[in-house]
Amino acid sequence: MPPFARPPQAWPERAIVREVGLRDGLQSISRVLPTEQKRQWIRGAWAAGQREIEVGSFVPARLLPQLADTAELVAYARTLPGLAVSVLVPNLKGAELALEVGADLMVMPLSASHAHSLANLRKTPDEVVAEVARIRAARDASGSQCLIEGGVGTAFGCTLQGEVKPAEVLRLMQALLDAGADRVSLADTVGYADPRMVGELFSQALALVGDKLACGHFHDTRGMALANCLAALQLGVQRFDASLAGIGGCPHAPGASGNVPTEDLAFMLTSMGVSTDIDIPDLLALRQQVAEWLEGETLHGTLWRARLPRTFAGAVA
Amino acid sequence: MPPFARPPQAWPERAIVREVGLRDGLQSISRVLPTEQKRQWIRGAWAAGQREIEVGSFVPARLLPQLADTAELVAYARTLPGLAVSVLVPNLKGAELALEVGADLMVMPLSASHAHSLANLRKTPDEVVAEVARIRAARDASGSQCLIEGGVGTAFGCTLQGEVKPAEVLRLMQALLDAGADRVSLADTVGYADPRMVGELFSQALALVGDKLACGHFHDTRGMALANCLAALQLGVQRFDASLAGIGGCPHAPGASGNVPTEDLAFMLTSMGVSTDIDIPDLLALRQQVAEWLEGETLHGTLWRARLPRTFAGAVA
Repeated sequence: MPPFARPPQAWPERAIVREVGLRDGLQSISRVLPTEQKRQWIRGAWAAGQREIEVGSFVPARLLPQLADTAELVAYARTLPGLAVSVLVPNLKGAELALEVGADLMVMPLSASHAHSLANLRKTPDEVVAEVARIRAARDASGSQCLIEGGVGTAFGCTLQGEVKPAEVLRLMQALLDAGADRVSLADTVGYADPRMVGELFSQALALVGDKLACGHFHDTRGMALANCLAALQLGVQRFDASLAGIGGCPHAPGASGNVPTEDLAFMLTSMGVSTDIDIPDLLALRQQVAEWLEGETLHGTLWRARLPRTFAGAVA
Repeated sequence: MPPFARPPQAWPERAIVREVGLRDGLQSISRVLPTEQKRQWIRGAWAAGQREIEVGSFVPARLLPQLADTAELVAYARTLPGLAVSVLVPNLKGAELALEVGADLMVMPLSASHAHSLANLRKTPDEVVAEVARIRAARDASGSQCLIEGGVGTAFGCTLQGEVKPAEVLRLMQALLDAGADRVSLADTVGYADPRMVGELFSQALALVGDKLACGHFHDTRGMALANCLAALQLGVQRFDASLAGIGGCPHAPGASGNVPTEDLAFMLTSMGVSTDIDIPDLLALRQQVAEWLEGETLHGTLWRARLPRTFAGAVA
């Protein structure tokens, strides 16, 4: 077992855990969480130190009744000092709503898998790029400072199409920026990525677009979400989407894990000395509250059960 | 988010997943699995491609009745071509039994935490080192080729003592080798490690003892086992302990995850192009069988539920 002659592993000093449980998580749970509980969740996440929260999605309420209160949640979230409030928008109409309510960031999803794009968005990836150009024009015309993030999904493969070529992912990422997106992110929508794939695709993406690659979005479908975050972190990626209690995920695999759990990711980063400004005991208390609201749903994560190590700085007894 | 100016991540071409479910897993489950089922498990693991299996432990049967058939299992496992059969031995008496039945490898645990060592083994770490010297003398006198591995546990912290200093871990590792151990391994017995700690301690250990550092043993108590394997793999570590269905673990945290699940680790490695010679569909079928035998016990792992990606080479439909 000859050790590689390699420099010591290096890690960023800080990273941001962006909460997407209220959107990616709740959209995959059929029950509708009352708006007041969502407000408490947003407030609790903010109080625990989270400063970026995706509060919902401007899709038609008949498609996702769980997220019908998104406008109300943006209005509430905007009252919390220092909080960057983001929403998902599926098209220009959603973007206009996001601009109207004053979101700080809108994430426009694009699926690099043509099959998934047609099935999920009823548009080809290039039609989504064209829509981003219209969104950019609307944003600029409105005078808003709202950022536009192109979220490139199924970037590591697709349950419908199978392989998704990295070259196509990179092409679409560049096309989104050319069309006027302020930044882009890469998502392993169906949990196909492994750390080597993450390292290789993120390396190429960073070489292509530099710091316009803003975020990694990993699902824990096959248990590799933390390892995948680690592989991206090591390349300097400093923002990750996560869902409290790991809710969310893949409708094609019932019971399968969802997004990387916020509390597990925040704990890993904090334990490693990568500052997130998140108070882990506060976050675990919030998880307990949300778990009560979602009683009966499949939740995920491991830290909540094992609790904090004795050696963790600031651990509660 | 400036990407670090770092060389591409590199990975070994091959790695070994050593099965310890029959020992570290079953010792933490109160039911006694019949010997015939254990034989089927060993045969199934071998048929799936595993070539290193820890089949049991030579501790007194009154302490661990679950492992009372260890001698019989060694005898059976020795009939399987190419299989390296290992056992855990807590002392010289256990080592003499291991030599008698013809094990290929004996793992002698040492706890770097003095508090844990006294509670668990009723010896100080240095008394364990002295016992290894006696074991080495017995091995040499017997003419056996059985390898002696010193397994340094609680290497990243301890539920009883809290912090365990890396310098003490390294001192004990060297002392084990000086006393006659052929090789050593590092274990995160209680699930306190994070990938940065793993990277730092394994780097130092590799600098100190080189390829005599034979194995990493990670528990998934806080969900980081795969990420921790990854951090060690990246330094060139090429052998990892794992338990099918992630059984095993920490008696102080009921329901908490155990060892890294064999199937999840083997899948991550294979997906990354790190060859393990393990047939993943065969291993998943074995997991299904073992899960039936262990019905009612808390099992772990994620791959079994999500199944293999469409893009996985050799995936079954």
